[in-house]
Amino acid sequence: MMDVSEGSGISRRRFLSAVGAAGGAGTMFATMGALGLAPTARADTYHPPRRADFALSGRSAAKVAVLGGGIAGLTCAYELGKAGYDCTVLEAQDRIGGRNFTVRNGTEYTELGGVTQVAEFAGDGYLNAGPARIAQWMVTLDYCRELGVPIEVFTNTNANAFTYNESAGMKSPQRHRTAKADVHGYVGELLAKATDRGALDAELTAADKERLLDFLQDWGTIEERNGGWRYLGGPRRGFSVNPGAGENTGTVLEPVPSLSEVFASGVGSFFSFEHDYDQAMQMFQPVGGMDRIPCALAEAIGTGRIRTGSRVTRITAGEHGVAVGYRAADGRDRELTADYCVAALPPHLLAGIPHNLGVEVRAALATYRDRLVPAGKIGLEYRNRWWETDHRIYGGITWTDLDISTIWYPSHGHHGRTGVLVGYQSGYRGDDDRAVRYERLPPKERELLAVAQGVKIHGAKFRDELTGSFSVAWRRAPHIETAWTSPPYDTAGYRLLNRPAGRVYFSGDWLSHLSSWQAGAFESARLVVAALHRRVLSA
Amino acid sequence: MMDVSEGSGISRRRFLSAVGAAGGAGTMFATMGALGLAPTARADTYHPPRRADFALSGRSAAKVAVLGGGIAGLTCAYELGKAGYDCTVLEAQDRIGGRNFTVRNGTEYTELGGVTQVAEFAGDGYLNAGPARIAQWMVTLDYCRELGVPIEVFTNTNANAFTYNESAGMKSPQRHRTAKADVHGYVGELLAKATDRGALDAELTAADKERLLDFLQDWGTIEERNGGWRYLGGPRRGFSVNPGAGENTGTVLEPVPSLSEVFASGVGSFFSFEHDYDQAMQMFQPVGGMDRIPCALAEAIGTGRIRTGSRVTRITAGEHGVAVGYRAADGRDRELTADYCVAALPPHLLAGIPHNLGVEVRAALATYRDRLVPAGKIGLEYRNRWWETDHRIYGGITWTDLDISTIWYPSHGHHGRTGVLVGYQSGYRGDDDRAVRYERLPPKERELLAVAQGVKIHGAKFRDELTGSFSVAWRRAPHIETAWTSPPYDTAGYRLLNRPAGRVYFSGDWLSHLSSWQAGAFESARLVVAALHRRVLSA
Repeated sequence: MMDVSEGSGISRRRFLSAVGAAGGAGTMFATMGALGLAPTARADTYHPPRRADFALSGRSAAKVAVLGGGIAGLTCAYELGKAGYDCTVLEAQDRIGGRNFTVRNGTEYTELGGVTQVAEFAGDGYLNAGPARIAQWMVTLDYCRELGVPIEVFTNTNANAFTYNESAGMKSPQRHRTAKADVHGYVGELLAKATDRGALDAELTAADKERLLDFLQDWGTIEERNGGWRYLGGPRRGFSVNPGAGENTGTVLEPVPSLSEVFASGVGSFFSFEHDYDQAMQMFQPVGGMDRIPCALAEAIGTGRIRTGSRVTRITAGEHGVAVGYRAADGRDRELTADYCVAALPPHLLAGIPHNLGVEVRAALATYRDRLVPAGKIGLEYRNRWWETDHRIYGGITWTDLDISTIWYPSHGHHGRTGVLVGYQSGYRGDDDRAVRYERLPPKERELLAVAQGVKIHGAKFRDELTGSFSVAWRRAPHIETAWTSPPYDTAGYRLLNRPAGRVYFSGDWLSHLSSWQAGAFESARLVVAALHRRVLSA
Repeated sequence: MMDVSEGSGISRRRFLSAVGAAGGAGTMFATMGALGLAPTARADTYHPPRRADFALSGRSAAKVAVLGGGIAGLTCAYELGKAGYDCTVLEAQDRIGGRNFTVRNGTEYTELGGVTQVAEFAGDGYLNAGPARIAQWMVTLDYCRELGVPIEVFTNTNANAFTYNESAGMKSPQRHRTAKADVHGYVGELLAKATDRGALDAELTAADKERLLDFLQDWGTIEERNGGWRYLGGPRRGFSVNPGAGENTGTVLEPVPSLSEVFASGVGSFFSFEHDYDQAMQMFQPVGGMDRIPCALAEAIGTGRIRTGSRVTRITAGEHGVAVGYRAADGRDRELTADYCVAALPPHLLAGIPHNLGVEVRAALATYRDRLVPAGKIGLEYRNRWWETDHRIYGGITWTDLDISTIWYPSHGHHGRTGVLVGYQSGYRGDDDRAVRYERLPPKERELLAVAQGVKIHGAKFRDELTGSFSVAWRRAPHIETAWTSPPYDTAGYRLLNRPAGRVYFSGDWLSHLSSWQAGAFESARLVVAALHRRVLSA
């Protein structure tokens, strides 16, 4: 089982415990050709429904009620619409997109508990409060291409950003490039020494040793001294004075810390992030905000088919159709009838809506109630882009062991007047306690807490240049009430919800192995659309 | 001495041999605060000349002849112009920018030897034939900010791009992410084993060991088996079938090659590139092509001050001024007189222009003739962006041991109809023989040779979808005749040229420790401008 999530990264431990000894070494090039050269395969090739499918079969498109205007619901309506299905989307909020929520100047938002925030961001600054990055392999990019949503790089890793582990005794932040140079250097030094001492003679042939030492010299910037291999620092650490013109050779950053100091600082604990399958660079974002995707979907669907402010109150499935009761935007109770229904709401909220789909479905949906993630983000707007001018950081993420976890520098608007940082992403990689701490605070206090931490990284400007903030704690988001879920893979309930309950289908990232990623919602929608269309064509 | 160059990377060996034992370990956090937190210092803070400088001193701005309309020359004219200096730029070519040369649809170019190419690139495809990337710390970005040249990410590293070492017996390319997972895995396995065996007890305390093993488990994805630490592959290698919806957990790329196979393949030899101070991500490029920078400089200078098609034929310096003879665009010989002169031409060509600056200057310039680099690039235009759709590669560089060295995927125009790859960057990191091989061929044959290599990475599409090409071999570029130079640092000649010869100053990346980078030209220009302005103010 894989749990790939924007929040939690690929769960390698989970993977390894499942793969077990089967993942052993093989012959390198035996099948590498097909694997390396060929386009990455998908489990099954998706064929969108077409109008021609009906023309050729003599059947006609059905009427479909789509519950939820997040990515899964919108994608179902969009894909079914390609073949002429008569889709209606019911969305409880007054905006579409679900967790795909871009906060920009004027955005008004009231969280559960009653606090209202209005974003006052100058210029083109925004906060992608939910999904913010797209990996190259994800189907999300295919939708950007198909829908004509321009993309640009999302900088997920930046050698100039910082690492800061206060609890490990670091007195000040260190740039990623410096941390890498030192860790690689000492790993190289140690492994070269052990190799020379014959400690690995059982594992290494003479040829292996030679190649390994060649690699370590280059990668670890180690060299042979009279006492054996040594890491001595060098330009990869960075410069305190940059090289320049004339006689300015630059001044390399010094002193080089000792081996014990480097490993005690824990700076290496963030290295693996950028190697994860879902987080490795290059990453992307839509130009102008992540909500360009749901906006483009809605435009393609036809906004007349989307009813916002419409909260589902009841689902009644019959032998020949489905009736969906909802409280409409005008406050009146209405009913939508259709041949089929796709329920693309958050599972734990769906669990609370009266329906006649059976106790097993009810129980399966209810299991998600214990699988919610309390993550959130804060956007901090500054009157100038001091991180670019003072620190030469153009995008990327600073990693810390503080309760803010990370600081994200914006990947757009470089050299502009103002900018919006992400001041924390709480709930990341399971640090739920930190997330709950922020979640419980009113927005202004979240800001004060986050800024107090950020000052430790960037000094007084982190407080003094601030012009405003906007925060979202996803468990307090109306009609959503979670950042994402940890689906109950390998259970009968998960399998049950991946099948239709009569004429009602379920869809969402919570029914995928890409939980928390938009790609999971897209993939789940495709799976449902393909199944529903097959059924209609063969009815 | 540092040699930082876009072509050759930071010369670590050179650096280490100079620093020697002085670079030993120190106390980690002693001075890290200032180094890590503070803005990166420059050798001296640059203060641009201002009109007020003259108003306050009672002196007036001088007339300056600037020879060469590359980055150094344009920057001198731009900076001096801020204080009202009367600058005239003489440029031999019919375009400005020098090696900052963006080839786009319609660009016509005749190389030495007489072959003319006309670019026929559809859409917004272009080739930055010279400089193509900007590091965050470089002054080049400050000029982009100041001049209002929008920037975007240049993708210098991409986990989805390939490595292919044919001579090491690789039968097919491997993605960078896969190569990294395997190399990190086996480095981790070996070092963990050696640590457990006590081979490093002299270097590691018990606490060091524990922290080291914690790091290696996470970073190397190793785990303890009954036989000790093992690398067994995992999701960081990539997937042959991506994780998706429902029951699709994805299929991890397998089999995992053996340790011997991994090091024999040499895939690790390209890892260090992305850790170099001048190449580490994030990198940037101007939106629309690198020549947006010289174009913006020219606009700020005033195009009336720039005489293109004007080849310098003679420099005569006197006690009170300088006379510059040149062959003008109309074919007639003319003379430009000025109070001062900045010679910002390629040094080996400047060496051939008659002047009265003395034999030492002549000799110093002539030393550059043996320090030229025969690099070049080819742009390959394709009718579709198969690297994005088929291989999910959005920008970045594939590394090979073939004579093309690298393939660069465009960092702009994602999801567009067409695109221009860089099919080789020859002359990179000292492989002059390969560069000379391409340089000697006519453009069409360069294309055939490059495409034949590229097919080994990407298959038949690399040939079949090609619509055109454009190549520049810099030693054959009129009035330039080198890609960059390897300056004679630590010589009397280099020092001499960094001082004015009477009223004639020299400027260019060839007088900097950032040779081959535009930043070197900018920094050199600033140095000259500051010195000239001080002199005028104190005259």
